[in-house]
Amino acid sequence: MSEIETSIDLRYETKEDKQIKLWGGRFESGLDPLMEEFNDSLRFDKRLFAADITGSIAYAKALRKCDLLKETEFNLMKEGLESIEREWKNGSFTIKAGDEDIHTANERRLKELIGTETGGKLHTGRSRNDQVATDMKIWLRESLKELLKYMLKLIDVIVKRSTQYLDALMPGYTHLQRAQPVYFSHWLLSFAFMFRQDCQRLVSLVDRNNVCPLGSGALSGNPFNIDRDFLAKELDFDSCSLNSMQAVGDRDFVAEFHFWSSLTIVHMSKLAEDLILWSSKEFGFIEISDSFSTGSSLMPQKKNADSLELIRGKSGRVIGNLTAILVVLKGLPSTFNKDLQEDKEGMFDTMDTMKNVIQVTTGAIDTLTLNRNKCIEALSSDMLATDIAYYLVRKGVSFRKSHELVGSVVAAAERMGTELHNLPIAVFKEISDNFDDDIRLLWNFENSVNQYVAKGGTSRSSVVQQIAFLKEWIKQMDE
Amino acid sequence: MSEIETSIDLRYETKEDKQIKLWGGRFESGLDPLMEEFNDSLRFDKRLFAADITGSIAYAKALRKCDLLKETEFNLMKEGLESIEREWKNGSFTIKAGDEDIHTANERRLKELIGTETGGKLHTGRSRNDQVATDMKIWLRESLKELLKYMLKLIDVIVKRSTQYLDALMPGYTHLQRAQPVYFSHWLLSFAFMFRQDCQRLVSLVDRNNVCPLGSGALSGNPFNIDRDFLAKELDFDSCSLNSMQAVGDRDFVAEFHFWSSLTIVHMSKLAEDLILWSSKEFGFIEISDSFSTGSSLMPQKKNADSLELIRGKSGRVIGNLTAILVVLKGLPSTFNKDLQEDKEGMFDTMDTMKNVIQVTTGAIDTLTLNRNKCIEALSSDMLATDIAYYLVRKGVSFRKSHELVGSVVAAAERMGTELHNLPIAVFKEISDNFDDDIRLLWNFENSVNQYVAKGGTSRSSVVQQIAFLKEWIKQMDE
Amino acid sequence: MSEIETSIDLRYETKEDKQIKLWGGRFESGLDPLMEEFNDSLRFDKRLFAADITGSIAYAKALRKCDLLKETEFNLMKEGLESIEREWKNGSFTIKAGDEDIHTANERRLKELIGTETGGKLHTGRSRNDQVATDMKIWLRESLKELLKYMLKLIDVIVKRSTQYLDALMPGYTHLQRAQPVYFSHWLLSFAFMFRQDCQRLVSLVDRNNVCPLGSGALSGNPFNIDRDFLAKELDFDSCSLNSMQAVGDRDFVAEFHFWSSLTIVHMSKLAEDLILWSSKEFGFIEISDSFSTGSSLMPQKKNADSLELIRGKSGRVIGNLTAILVVLKGLPSTFNKDLQEDKEGMFDTMDTMKNVIQVTTGAIDTLTLNRNKCIEALSSDMLATDIAYYLVRKGVSFRKSHELVGSVVAAAERMGTELHNLPIAVFKEISDNFDDDIRLLWNFENSVNQYVAKGGTSRSSVVQQIAFLKEWIKQMDE
Amino acid sequence: MSEIETSIDLRYETKEDKQIKLWGGRFESGLDPLMEEFNDSLRFDKRLFAADITGSIAYAKALRKCDLLKETEFNLMKEGLESIEREWKNGSFTIKAGDEDIHTANERRLKELIGTETGGKLHTGRSRNDQVATDMKIWLRESLKELLKYMLKLIDVIVKRSTQYLDALMPGYTHLQRAQPVYFSHWLLSFAFMFRQDCQRLVSLVDRNNVCPLGSGALSGNPFNIDRDFLAKELDFDSCSLNSMQAVGDRDFVAEFHFWSSLTIVHMSKLAEDLILWSSKEFGFIEISDSFSTGSSLMPQKKNADSLELIRGKSGRVIGNLTAILVVLKGLPSTFNKDLQEDKEGMFDTMDTMKNVIQVTTGAIDTLTLNRNKCIEALSSDMLATDIAYYLVRKGVSFRKSHELVGSVVAAAERMGTELHNLPIAVFKEISDNFDDDIRLLWNFENSVNQYVAKGGTSRSSVVQQIAFLKEWIKQMDE
Repeated sequence: MSEIETSIDLRYETKEDKQIKLWGGRFESGLDPLMEEFNDSLRFDKRLFAADITGSIAYAKALRKCDLLKETEFNLMKEGLESIEREWKNGSFTIKAGDEDIHTANERRLKELIGTETGGKLHTGRSRNDQVATDMKIWLRESLKELLKYMLKLIDVIVKRSTQYLDALMPGYTHLQRAQPVYFSHWLLSFAFMFRQDCQRLVSLVDRNNVCPLGSGALSGNPFNIDRDFLAKELDFDSCSLNSMQAVGDRDFVAEFHFWSSLTIVHMSKLAEDLILWSSKEFGFIEISDSFSTGSSLMPQKKNADSLELIRGKSGRVIGNLTAILVVLKGLPSTFNKDLQEDKEGMFDTMDTMKNVIQVTTGAIDTLTLNRNKCIEALSSDMLATDIAYYLVRKGVSFRKSHELVGSVVAAAERMGTELHNLPIAVFKEISDNFDDDIRLLWNFENSVNQYVAKGGTSRSSVVQQIAFLKEWIKQMDE
Repeated sequence: MSEIETSIDLRYETKEDKQIKLWGGRFESGLDPLMEEFNDSLRFDKRLFAADITGSIAYAKALRKCDLLKETEFNLMKEGLESIEREWKNGSFTIKAGDEDIHTANERRLKELIGTETGGKLHTGRSRNDQVATDMKIWLRESLKELLKYMLKLIDVIVKRSTQYLDALMPGYTHLQRAQPVYFSHWLLSFAFMFRQDCQRLVSLVDRNNVCPLGSGALSGNPFNIDRDFLAKELDFDSCSLNSMQAVGDRDFVAEFHFWSSLTIVHMSKLAEDLILWSSKEFGFIEISDSFSTGSSLMPQKKNADSLELIRGKSGRVIGNLTAILVVLKGLPSTFNKDLQEDKEGMFDTMDTMKNVIQVTTGAIDTLTLNRNKCIEALSSDMLATDIAYYLVRKGVSFRKSHELVGSVVAAAERMGTELHNLPIAVFKEISDNFDDDIRLLWNFENSVNQYVAKGGTSRSSVVQQIAFLKEWIKQMDE
Repeated sequence: MSEIETSIDLRYETKEDKQIKLWGGRFESGLDPLMEEFNDSLRFDKRLFAADITGSIAYAKALRKCDLLKETEFNLMKEGLESIEREWKNGSFTIKAGDEDIHTANERRLKELIGTETGGKLHTGRSRNDQVATDMKIWLRESLKELLKYMLKLIDVIVKRSTQYLDALMPGYTHLQRAQPVYFSHWLLSFAFMFRQDCQRLVSLVDRNNVCPLGSGALSGNPFNIDRDFLAKELDFDSCSLNSMQAVGDRDFVAEFHFWSSLTIVHMSKLAEDLILWSSKEFGFIEISDSFSTGSSLMPQKKNADSLELIRGKSGRVIGNLTAILVVLKGLPSTFNKDLQEDKEGMFDTMDTMKNVIQVTTGAIDTLTLNRNKCIEALSSDMLATDIAYYLVRKGVSFRKSHELVGSVVAAAERMGTELHNLPIAVFKEISDNFDDDIRLLWNFENSVNQYVAKGGTSRSSVVQQIAFLKEWIKQMDE
Repeated sequence: MSEIETSIDLRYETKEDKQIKLWGGRFESGLDPLMEEFNDSLRFDKRLFAADITGSIAYAKALRKCDLLKETEFNLMKEGLESIEREWKNGSFTIKAGDEDIHTANERRLKELIGTETGGKLHTGRSRNDQVATDMKIWLRESLKELLKYMLKLIDVIVKRSTQYLDALMPGYTHLQRAQPVYFSHWLLSFAFMFRQDCQRLVSLVDRNNVCPLGSGALSGNPFNIDRDFLAKELDFDSCSLNSMQAVGDRDFVAEFHFWSSLTIVHMSKLAEDLILWSSKEFGFIEISDSFSTGSSLMPQKKNADSLELIRGKSGRVIGNLTAILVVLKGLPSTFNKDLQEDKEGMFDTMDTMKNVIQVTTGAIDTLTLNRNKCIEALSSDMLATDIAYYLVRKGVSFRKSHELVGSVVAAAERMGTELHNLPIAVFKEISDNFDDDIRLLWNFENSVNQYVAKGGTSRSSVVQQIAFLKEWIKQMDE
């Protein structure tokens, strides 16, 4: 047996760096330096430091509850952990060789602060598998609450700007072709309703995933009869997970977050596209403020809507991160596999991106200027073609027939090189007996818009309703 | 004016096929044949036929309510539409040139059945933009209800098989390395909990998107003061959309469905991966029934788990469809653009795939055979290493120290070429004074498993609880 | 032994449908009907029928060469296979129960035509694993040759239209803001150069993957010393694969094709985006011909560039298919796994999409009308700001200083609400002494464009060179 | 005019930070701080510093050639640029407010070093649009050369290890079921052939994209008749781009790189999957060295193949980055849009990932241990079933019939609970008259393997050929 003992002693004496690892006991040789770097996640997962400390304090409480820690040990541990959190916050935490992730780093530091014996009790019955799932869920939940606030602020700004430009007329487009006149406010509010759906999805995602995995161990659960409901409550979870093998491998919340972000930024890319088009000289409907524009290093006259182009571009990154997590998860055996370490960088990157993107969108909308005149100049009487069809409908012609007849009117105007409102009444009458001189009453965009009084339409009354609805909704959400 | 009239007449007389189009009035020349095919969506969107008829009957009722249809016209129209639905159902509907989509085809047929005059009134104030969004939402909602039933059936089968193999021991794995013993039932139930989360997401997605876009027109709303709340109620929606421009461009529900499917099939790919591994000769834990296996055209002895491999493979298709819709939506201007026509084939394909995949998964699980002996043979005493650490913890050693000491025990056993339970007690004692003869009591996998009594653990009592919980939950869902 | 024999006899007598399977010998029970459908690939892989026959004839020749077939057997087999090909071509091939894929179907039919004994020799030493890889490579190679022709035709049409509109001036844009004047031809030719890169990638992909997998067996090779170089030559491959395990699992060619398509359709989406913008009323630079446009079911005046919107939208589908194949392949064990069956539908779908998309793009460009006047009206003198900076550079001012000074000129003009060419010379002079009356000479867009004579610039001489270059290149490619 | 002058003076005096921008001349107000951060790319694009300096020196040479710089100016500029490169390399470069990207930062510093007047001439006729495309192409080309070396090293190690384990028998798998015996070397070499294809694609990608965009200006070319062929040569490009609008918007090379990486890492994920499976206790074929493994924080006995799991996992990130760039490019208008700024971080991330992944793969293969005995134990006589069929073929039975008969043999053995080689000869004979006592000669795995002598087969002779082929190929590539 002496041989074994010697080799054990030797190991303890000479492989100092390896001993720092949480798992080093059985290993004969250390990591290849390349592998050391490849395996290291502390450079990014240190962002979880606060969640990790919070989780550890709750776990220590639970250990205390089932007497695996004495009162004095618990107090020591809690103070130690709080002190580590302060070190991270004020930038004084020193990373040491062997700190392969935030969990290792925090535990190593705890042992330095309160001694190996007491510090070494924290991980009793816990595994990094349940620990990291818990940390990520806490971090994501808190970050999503912040995102929700940014989203509500964005909707609030949209409501404000819509109120300001309530009755500004402009062309509504489908297929990027002028379709029917609408209010600018109606267009802008359409995004408030997209973002409201995003908020609903966000709340739903947070609620659905607010289930605590702590106490699931490596895969088979906790053998010390730890009070998992207590743990969940301590960490503000609504309940605890009900199957340990599911819990340690669960990254649904990460995938859901990536999808949420993808769909939300797709909405923002649509908004950006509209605004980029409209800030072109040819449309000229809006001007992006200098604060959200940049220029050209070559062409002195250029002013580019860079903020909006970046938002549109960043949809690629966010959708890419969604693809990434799904590829990681696909075909993986159950419980924990190291592949899951790839869950964090994408989550952080998407969170940072979304925070920026929502705020820049808010700023760009808050500071844009609408060029009402350009909008009105772009209204052309062919956009009233549907109204002419409705005119015939009201005279008893079936809609489909009316549509055809107005098609002929439009074709006639094109052939004559004139606009609809300049087309002689005689031409109208030749196309259908139902046309009469009162057709002239249609040439009014304001009236046209205001006929859409059914819920959700572009009439002034409907827009006012939308604004009232959203204000009330924001108020409720803020509470 | 005679010139105009002539050309109009000419058009009406000679361009018969073009006139069938809903939008042909102003066009001078017909479509390029290649473009005709490129533009045609009837070959796939005909699957919406029932939803389209349902939507049209509701819309006709609403037209009747605001007197745009007379009672007799409405009755005629309703009968006509119902008759068209029967034609689709019994396969007698004849597609004609110019039927570019299901909406066009149904309306063309309606006019044939009840006359152009009355039939031509159906589309009054409606656009294909709000019509198609409505049709898709109805179709998806009904299909998702069916999917939910399949999912519940799958969970039910898992619960049944878990009950059957309640106390079958097997190795639990992390990183595909033997970790700790677990019950087969605990492993299988972990998937029930994943699928339960999927069901929760499914219900949430159906509810959140059950908002009626009908009455939004092309983009600006409905000018005939149609009762949109009535429309919503008629079509079993919970409410109607509140902004017409948002409503006609909204495809969030499609994207959400694709994501739902992606995450669900990712769970199934994990299940498939486990079962493929376990049906290899080397593991040998399970046998997939012949009904879900195939053979080799070259090698007579082969029996392959093709069903599971296909499930795993089909995750690619489903995730690909998710990517597709997000790429389609990215950077699109607001309201309707023809790009959105690309929303349907993917939706149908993913729906068909998910229906098959869920059912095949159910069948494969329902018919697999567990080889209890092979599972037990695969249990090795190194899987009790954590228990040895816990043994020391219970003797007062800190967990971290225990972990290191047991690491040395494992290393010693490896060096001696023996298994843990055959390692002489003396070796244990040399490594730590805390080891005593009672270490022998640990060599019992049943006992090991049953110490995990905390919620969600792998103990028998916990598994029984999980089963009871799921049974109750399925019962509630079925109601 | 009688028991065994009986059971064998029984099986032969009663399980007729199962016996049709190529692999049924060892199986006790048939497939679940659901699994039968799930496993079936004939509904889509029948498109490989010609490649499968071609491959089988070559394989029969190789069997003949090493005397595994007699001359008469070979002749019979060849005739049989050719006759099956004719059946597929004229639509008389009858699919039977048990035909699970094209390989099974063809072999089943062959045995019907020439007898089980001789027909049963075709598959000697071959596996569906090497067979399907060969079939797919042949099919893809031939289809890609066709695609290349379509691409060359597209470039040809671009060259033709560029020649036609050689000297049409228009604004060049960056960030969708007017940047510098360019020739329409220069803009259009930029796409010819993108598509030329696509062609280069296409040729490279075909060449690189033209390696024959036939003779690799299921995974370990061919034991009858078949002449694989002969096989490769017979099937127009450049060489044969050098490792059987790599060959049967290789789907690089499918993934490469999907990526090729993705990047190519991304280029087309860019072209579509430009043209959609330019066919808006606000830009008004081009008109898409009626043959590639459609209208609105609600708004009679609408003419939408549906062809281009569909092209842009179909980028989603193609990129989705790329994602799909990569997800399928990710983490798969080596050699053949059934997951690979998911390689075909995406390949067919992307091929069909690309064929349509390239041709519709060609048609849309071939028939569009340029509105020269609208293009010229959109030229504004601020687009000459860089020229003013160059004016100063030529007077010895450093470019960076010039850029700043012209920035001030632009700002001055904006403040005075005038355009650059109307700004009093005095203002110029106040900003810099280097401005002189000859600044007026700059107000000429034609001159501005023609200063860009360096290779690749927008000057007339450069455009002429580009056209000549592309014509010569197309000629070489056609050979 | 005094008003203008005043405002200009004011701007110059008070907006110091704005003036540092390359494009600030016309702007009234500075950037929003949030936008400043959003727009800033220096934090990542500083990695292009060397390529930017290289490009600038070449551009200065070209300016000198057409006398836009005097000899003394050029010398000053060259020295200044070289000095900036040194600053970056030794970490002494100081980033200042307003350095929005690497191009701005380098030019700002140049002006500090050699004066505003001379420094301000560098950008004459150049735009950041052609500059950044050039920088990226140079950076990518040089980085890819490095990657190629890593790939060749990896193949070299595979060849070395294959030579070492040339004749180690093991089961070959399809569908993860034992199929036919193969040599471990044959399996390992299959990856060398995948990686060789990757190398071919890499070389092709570098060559195809080695085209110089410098001299394309913002979009319309270079007006100073700069010698673009000279520029290309100076920067080691094979030619210069032929259309300026294509050149400034071209990111094909980035997309190609992402696809190259995706397919390559998919191959690595396959290798990782095989090795993870084989290092499980149940297979036990290989042992990953401690240097590339880690342990568990909870379970002292665990040794996990983390290196391989991370490689498999990182395929998600790389495929995600591919998706990202395609989404960014989709639907973008032509030439430069700010969205393209999203091209860099993904490129850097994928490059770093691939460098690590290739090297870790190399290390893991170089240090793994094959357990020959476990491999041989896993060979079972059912893997010789195909050989039995071939035995019948050689006796004149058609292959398809043989396959069926052997299927019955396998079924008989299963029913009797014995292995094929223990099945009584009588049973064979009852199934077919063609079986004789010499069937016993088949029970030799070595012989079985060595019948696959056709090119690419698993016979020893073929493996030796493969090794010779690869060695020769590596030699050629290294030259």
